[in-house]
Amino acid sequence: MNIDLSKTKTRVPQDMQAQADEYLKELQSGRMENTGWVDLPKTWTDEALDGLQKTADAIAAKCSLFIVVGIGGSYLGAKAVLDALGHSRKGRPQIRFAGYSLAGTQLRRIVTALHEQETCLCVISKSGTTMETLLAYSILKEEMFRKYGEDAKDRIFVMTEPKDNPLRSDVRDFGFSAFDHPTDIGGRFSVLSIVGLLPLAVAGIDVRALLRGAAELAGDHLTDYACTRVLLQQSGKAVEVFTYFSTDLKSFGEWIRQLFGETEGKNGKGAYPACLCFTPDLHSIGQFLQQGNPIYLETMIQYAQAPDDFAVPDSAGDLYSGLTLEQINRCAEEGVAKAHSEVAPVAVLRIERPDAYCLGQLIYYLELNAAVSAMLLGVNPFDQPGVENYKREIRQLVAKLK
Amino acid sequence: MNIDLSKTKTRVPQDMQAQADEYLKELQSGRMENTGWVDLPKTWTDEALDGLQKTADAIAAKCSLFIVVGIGGSYLGAKAVLDALGHSRKGRPQIRFAGYSLAGTQLRRIVTALHEQETCLCVISKSGTTMETLLAYSILKEEMFRKYGEDAKDRIFVMTEPKDNPLRSDVRDFGFSAFDHPTDIGGRFSVLSIVGLLPLAVAGIDVRALLRGAAELAGDHLTDYACTRVLLQQSGKAVEVFTYFSTDLKSFGEWIRQLFGETEGKNGKGAYPACLCFTPDLHSIGQFLQQGNPIYLETMIQYAQAPDDFAVPDSAGDLYSGLTLEQINRCAEEGVAKAHSEVAPVAVLRIERPDAYCLGQLIYYLELNAAVSAMLLGVNPFDQPGVENYKREIRQLVAKLK
Repeated sequence: MNIDLSKTKTRVPQDMQAQADEYLKELQSGRMENTGWVDLPKTWTDEALDGLQKTADAIAAKCSLFIVVGIGGSYLGAKAVLDALGHSRKGRPQIRFAGYSLAGTQLRRIVTALHEQETCLCVISKSGTTMETLLAYSILKEEMFRKYGEDAKDRIFVMTEPKDNPLRSDVRDFGFSAFDHPTDIGGRFSVLSIVGLLPLAVAGIDVRALLRGAAELAGDHLTDYACTRVLLQQSGKAVEVFTYFSTDLKSFGEWIRQLFGETEGKNGKGAYPACLCFTPDLHSIGQFLQQGNPIYLETMIQYAQAPDDFAVPDSAGDLYSGLTLEQINRCAEEGVAKAHSEVAPVAVLRIERPDAYCLGQLIYYLELNAAVSAMLLGVNPFDQPGVENYKREIRQLVAKLK
Repeated sequence: MNIDLSKTKTRVPQDMQAQADEYLKELQSGRMENTGWVDLPKTWTDEALDGLQKTADAIAAKCSLFIVVGIGGSYLGAKAVLDALGHSRKGRPQIRFAGYSLAGTQLRRIVTALHEQETCLCVISKSGTTMETLLAYSILKEEMFRKYGEDAKDRIFVMTEPKDNPLRSDVRDFGFSAFDHPTDIGGRFSVLSIVGLLPLAVAGIDVRALLRGAAELAGDHLTDYACTRVLLQQSGKAVEVFTYFSTDLKSFGEWIRQLFGETEGKNGKGAYPACLCFTPDLHSIGQFLQQGNPIYLETMIQYAQAPDDFAVPDSAGDLYSGLTLEQINRCAEEGVAKAHSEVAPVAVLRIERPDAYCLGQLIYYLELNAAVSAMLLGVNPFDQPGVENYKREIRQLVAKLK
């Protein structure tokens, strides 16, 4: 993994760098609350991974569709990795996500699929009380019992904290298999825990490679990026656009948006995190980025090598014929970084290729830098007190309907 | 359609309102360049629509897959409406989009589908020179000839300006059927022209209802929204989040992002346009919106009635049981608007339901307000000079590869 901050034209003062290194050590010390994710690349033992793989294989053996019911950090990490790697491996179940929306049309499609395919279902909620997740789960659970009768009990899995809550009650009442959601890991940092790894292992993704990538992330300057983006925020950059050149990374962008938005966005701090897929979104937002209000910094994720390729036919014209599509895409990465850096700071994070190992590196790098960024901004990286406001308003309005 | 600007807590001065009304008249006068879209709801004659429908029916009769090859305004409008209405009507071809990305994996899936299904293809580029579109088209054209031989000529359609360009040459050389892209309409304002209506008619969408909705949009205060958002931008709101409560509106959000980003974002003006799908994205960006840097204004699209529905089972708990999912989603709309308006201005655009008629209204309202906003900001709504920068950089890098 290669980090190029030269196009940000930003120099990190030594004392800030030293402070960031201190924060990183604090994260790694194991003494801070909610930092269970920091040690995940090491704490997953071979034995635990064998157990996970066995469980995942058993689930995969009895279904062609695995529905993950969850919202926010309970699904974004798994979906990010899955989409980036081109979905499930051959012969493994298709993974679909539900319970992240109240829209009926989306859930209707899942219900239809549930009845058409052999299905297993895993509901994920740390607190066991998340509104959207519990609503979708209550509907899908009924459909599972309608389809499978008592056998549904062997096809429904629950992942929640080891505490009393509505999902735990179902484990007790129905005998569903349960997985413990780690108590010291918040949703947005959970992708390398069982929360992300179980669905990925069911899909046949190499979760050991993912963890190995994270474990082998090394370097003396792991937090330069955090320092740079905090300096840029403090100099007035109110928006950070995270950009990438593959439609397969769209979900990864949404995972990044949660990671930075929820980790930094409190006490009036943080940059508005936006994710853009290039070149498509250049044809909608490229004009603004080049000549609009220059209030943004850009973090660009690049590939050194792309996974699939097409030779461009002669009919495409002299400039392009004989090249491959992805060769041109690499030129787009470089050309866009150059054009944007004329008007905005551009940080480039380049991974070798979109495989599990490299994604593991990138995920862990971003998690560490998000946490250190928040600490540099003087906010708690691991809480999200603001989300109670709208939840309270919704509950009050719902209560009035009764 | 109901426009509620009360939660923006913004008062539009009379002289600004008068100025905006003047700009609206100027747009409607037919004297401005590139305003061919303004009269579309009236200029589509019954005869022209009959012809379009006949063409679309003929295409639909010979394929189960209709690939639209285009980028930016050449596909976002049709995709926005199609996704909002739940895809193609029964018995009509599936519509898939290509040519909006350089990523090989995405194109590979389209090529696979092309060989599995009976396929027709329409390439759309106003200039006939768009890089991504021409590259994908050159590859897909070869695959079409590989599959259908000479018969491919009857399955490939071209939409471009009536000027000499690479796509026109193909029309001449191969005898493909051609449609004229209107010369006085830019891509981001083209959804109600043949650019958007042809794919929608192939999909079986009621394009007459779409146009009727636009034509019947009326009211004395059509440009209040433009004035309000310009005032808010001028008071320091650097980001505008466009929000909606259905996953089916995600593509609509992307269409909006181009409409406002490209129309306003020049000469250092404009708010960064972001689109968010609630409630899902509240679980990633909700914390930032409530307590982060308060630099945003919000435009929320609401439905009065939702299209599909589920009764919530008793097992979901006393608060929710007996209600429908969409009743709770309506509470979410209202509750989130209330919670956000405590920290940010919130404009609410409420359409009756997601059908073609109401979407036509919303589209036309947004187009008029985007154009008037840009005029109030003192920029040309209809150009996009900044996009040449990155295109030039890419071409130079590609040329070096040869």
